[in-house]
Amino acid sequence: MNICSARPDDGTIRSTFLLPSGPDAPYGWRVPVTDPARRTGPHRIPSPQRMSTSPRTTLRSAPGKVLLLGEHAVVHGEPALAAALELAVEIRHEPGNATLRLRDSGGGLDTRPGHPDRVGRALEAILQALPPEAGSGELTVRSSIPPGAGLGSSGALCAALVRVLEAAHDLQLDPMQRLTAALAGERVFHGNASGLDPAASLFGGLIRFVRGTPPSIRPVTIARPLDLVVAQVAPGADTRRMVDDVQRRIDSLPAGGRAILRTIGICVDAAVDCIGGGDLDGLGQAMDMNHGLLTSLGVSTEALDHAVRLARAHGAAGAKLTGAGGGGCIVALARPGRLPDVRSALAPVSSLVHTLTLHPTP
Amino acid sequence: MNICSARPDDGTIRSTFLLPSGPDAPYGWRVPVTDPARRTGPHRIPSPQRMSTSPRTTLRSAPGKVLLLGEHAVVHGEPALAAALELAVEIRHEPGNATLRLRDSGGGLDTRPGHPDRVGRALEAILQALPPEAGSGELTVRSSIPPGAGLGSSGALCAALVRVLEAAHDLQLDPMQRLTAALAGERVFHGNASGLDPAASLFGGLIRFVRGTPPSIRPVTIARPLDLVVAQVAPGADTRRMVDDVQRRIDSLPAGGRAILRTIGICVDAAVDCIGGGDLDGLGQAMDMNHGLLTSLGVSTEALDHAVRLARAHGAAGAKLTGAGGGGCIVALARPGRLPDVRSALAPVSSLVHTLTLHPTP
Repeated sequence: MNICSARPDDGTIRSTFLLPSGPDAPYGWRVPVTDPARRTGPHRIPSPQRMSTSPRTTLRSAPGKVLLLGEHAVVHGEPALAAALELAVEIRHEPGNATLRLRDSGGGLDTRPGHPDRVGRALEAILQALPPEAGSGELTVRSSIPPGAGLGSSGALCAALVRVLEAAHDLQLDPMQRLTAALAGERVFHGNASGLDPAASLFGGLIRFVRGTPPSIRPVTIARPLDLVVAQVAPGADTRRMVDDVQRRIDSLPAGGRAILRTIGICVDAAVDCIGGGDLDGLGQAMDMNHGLLTSLGVSTEALDHAVRLARAHGAAGAKLTGAGGGGCIVALARPGRLPDVRSALAPVSSLVHTLTLHPTP
Repeated sequence: MNICSARPDDGTIRSTFLLPSGPDAPYGWRVPVTDPARRTGPHRIPSPQRMSTSPRTTLRSAPGKVLLLGEHAVVHGEPALAAALELAVEIRHEPGNATLRLRDSGGGLDTRPGHPDRVGRALEAILQALPPEAGSGELTVRSSIPPGAGLGSSGALCAALVRVLEAAHDLQLDPMQRLTAALAGERVFHGNASGLDPAASLFGGLIRFVRGTPPSIRPVTIARPLDLVVAQVAPGADTRRMVDDVQRRIDSLPAGGRAILRTIGICVDAAVDCIGGGDLDGLGQAMDMNHGLLTSLGVSTEALDHAVRLARAHGAAGAKLTGAGGGGCIVALARPGRLPDVRSALAPVSSLVHTLTLHPTP
């Protein structure tokens, strides 16, 4: 088993936990949408707001992720690079109910394991992968990750569920047990999910991931700070539909499709070398190439292409769509000192702009 | 030597010879630009207009080309697919001058072998590859190929020069001698040219080309009619600069760059199979993938991407930029019966729309 923690993360609440933003969740639960006037500007960090706790309360969070490179190809066995975000799902557990109940802090969701909605079915799948004592209590969930934007909101939900149930019931899981349980939930949302989203959420930092049983997950050595800008430029499309679209394209020209997937994998590993060697130009080039390769699989849009060009023209060493495409987000790598320029250039065309610096490995 | 004629073409004048259109030639000679009002509509075929001839006059033409797939990668040794256009360069030779003189029918060009302008240098290079008796006479050139648009105007000029000099002086060249002489001229215009443009012009029809000494050139078997639309959506960029830009990108991430070039080659050969098997969907997919792969090499633009999307949304099975990119043309494959729709969709964003049907191989 090739698993280790990229950056130890025990799931304690981060001080930078953000207010929710973004469109309605596609899987039946809503997160509050912030003031529309704010949706065209950079995402501002509010004062930390915590849910109330009591001594018997357990509180855990799990971050969203941004795919630096490798989306879609990772479904077909190629490596991908993902970084944990500061946007997160936070879940509070209180003992009481003999059977588990899950609500969101906004009151729009109220479900139980096995309920026909997707969260209920995911909860059921997660419980089946955990010891029986995990299945009791009251859960309240709050998310700052815009759902359906390719930022791993459902993977983070599943990871946070596993973490809070583990902590509340002192389950003492190992990393693989955590990932297996979270992936069982994630597959309710995304069908043939690779497991990358819950892995990025559970392991944190920057990881190289290859799907498998077990998956290969390893931390990526970072030589120089990586200043990233994540911008949502359109509502996200359904991940499963996009994955199916890519499969149809591959089926209609298998030799070309397979070569494109392999080329994405080659770009991912070239990018790992660039990150380890402090070569920001090379990493930017890998991101640009990866965007073109995703275009060749039919998952980019005019809005995503436009945002990618804007970023490159305003100080990004490279930029690409991130996630399933068909809408959603782009990620740009800012040249040293240019993070504000890239953020400002993207703000007018984005509903959310999130910045993130990945620091050099100690 | 792996050379054969895709469609025998003795260089006699075609009845569909068109009036010139397009921007100023980048290499110092001008073709008349048609009425600007016409530049936004489909390219209309005027009545044939011939240059005057006398019994001692020799008249030959050579067609432009459209790259169906493989541009840029062909420079690096991958296969490419090119089709001859009905747009052409026509050259009249009259005996008289002891040393060759070349003018264009509009009066803007007047040069001789070795003159410092590019046409003069190309003429010199071609003459050095031909027997000494080729170097006399008066040449008058007329072109209907928009120069600098990636449609092979300079390759066709060089091919037509070789043809008219061969015919006027009864040189009895073999196909490889013709290609070698035309390529010597083409390299004056495009530096590290692969030889594809003069080959497509000299061999006609649809060819699969791989550069080399000698190059590999073979006709492609066509099972079903291929309805193509070529549209110029922006002024063309300098081919040599675009080729250099691609080289820089490859140098900054060699593993990724090489894999992209190889993937383009794989798409080209998959497309050859589709064309031979009558699989228009597969061919369209190959063109779409090739466009994305060219995007990953940085040679597409917002205007080209937009036109490609327009074509796909209005009846094209696939579409891509054609030529060096950075501007210039796209080529779209219309689904059966949809040629008028694709042409109409592209007309508002194009300065020239040219349609072309490649007929099944007998």
